Amino acid sequence: MADITLYTFGTPNGFKASITLEELGLPYKAVEIDILKKEQKQDWYLKINPNGAIPAILDGNQRVFESGAIMLYLTQKYDAEGKISYAPGTPEYTEQLSWLMLQVGGLGPMQSQAHHFRVFANARSEYAIERYYNETKRLYSVLDSRLKESPYLAGDKYTIADIAHFVWTTVAPTILEIDISEWPALKEWVERIKQREGMKKGLGVPKSAFGAEEIAERVKKGRARIDAMTNTESQV
Amino acid sequence: MADITLYTFGTPNGFKASITLEELGLPYKAVEIDILKKEQKQDWYLKINPNGAIPAILDGNQRVFESGAIMLYLTQKYDAEGKISYAPGTPEYTEQLSWLMLQVGGLGPMQSQAHHFRVFANARSEYAIERYYNETKRLYSVLDSRLKESPYLAGDKYTIADIAHFVWTTVAPTILEIDISEWPALKEWVERIKQREGMKKGLGVPKSAFGAEEIAERVKKGRARIDAMTNTESQV
Repeated sequence: MADITLYTFGTPNGFKASITLEELGLPYKAVEIDILKKEQKQDWYLKINPNGAIPAILDGNQRVFESGAIMLYLTQKYDAEGKISYAPGTPEYTEQLSWLMLQVGGLGPMQSQAHHFRVFANARSEYAIERYYNETKRLYSVLDSRLKESPYLAGDKYTIADIAHFVWTTVAPTILEIDISEWPALKEWVERIKQREGMKKGLGVPKSAFGAEEIAERVKKGRARIDAMTNTESQV
Repeated sequence: MADITLYTFGTPNGFKASITLEELGLPYKAVEIDILKKEQKQDWYLKINPNGAIPAILDGNQRVFESGAIMLYLTQKYDAEGKISYAPGTPEYTEQLSWLMLQVGGLGPMQSQAHHFRVFANARSEYAIERYYNETKRLYSVLDSRLKESPYLAGDKYTIADIAHFVWTTVAPTILEIDISEWPALKEWVERIKQREGMKKGLGVPKSAFGAEEIAERVKKGRARIDAMTNTESQV
């Protein structure tokens, strides 16, 4: 029997782990690591995630850190039925892996830089804002093209590759004021996935995760703060 | 028998794929995709990598894109002997996966932003330079701590997790003028891995990859260009 503890906070990467656990129907204990209080840098926690970030899991004595690793680990060990993953060695598994990695190395880091420069930064850089908005939107176009030819990213089945991209696309309207109607297949996919029970449950972990209203309020303040700064960096 | 074509260019992510192929001793054909000429955006290539980036491989009819996916795919299919990977399901495999993902989602994207703002950007942002230098150095400290307790990132064996981080750390002195002597265990690990035959071969693919001198010259020009711009962005 699984003996899993999830260390997390209410962020897109945290949700990747909690949604995967919920979709698999696995029992687990969720422990909040408040990153606003830098709890992820405590010595005891660095033994679980030496990178000092959330999410991480302990499965018995086995540590797994980085949300992409957690998704692959959990499905390899606990999804023999193929609820949210294809079987290793199949062509669909390879597609799933490619699309998952595009989120881990692409959409995740790039959209989070857009979040940073538009909402959280201590300097205003129009160049950086444009750079990361453009890359985020370019990636949405890549996803949209794929979703025009396939109901889910890896194929006919909803998988961890969808979960990984979903948690980022779904916050774009609030945090970046990006209207995803611009990408109709992407929008339809978001609406479809949103309805899943496992998705809804996973988005509510940890219990302290900010609600939609509080997020909107915090983002509004952050954006206003950036807007009030003068951008005067040199451009060529 | 493997029928592999690698589409690549001389960048750290490209080398992750070529080094993995060389270390496994697999036969493959390397096709240069000149990203300076935007060849990665051609229609025929987008069918292989819908994200329009390098590297990607075709193994028979199977496409695999994103360097992290290529590394996992190749070792899962062609490394039953465990030359550069641990067996799925073992604790060491899980460590390998966590450390690999830390490069894919962390060091790779963050160090490449440091490269961008220090050498390639069309605006000068001290804030962004500092942000990405700090994150790169923080990650080097994380790797250094790990390498003090373990000869390689996943355990006693050199694996794809080491290859993934190596290709970034090894270019830091030239591109970012970061002296990695600051992290002794990391430096010792770099020196050790550098000597491997598969590593040397992989770093020479494609044949057109810039040599060390040409890279140094290009970087010098890029840095001078950034230095000549005035940073006047607002800071708070």
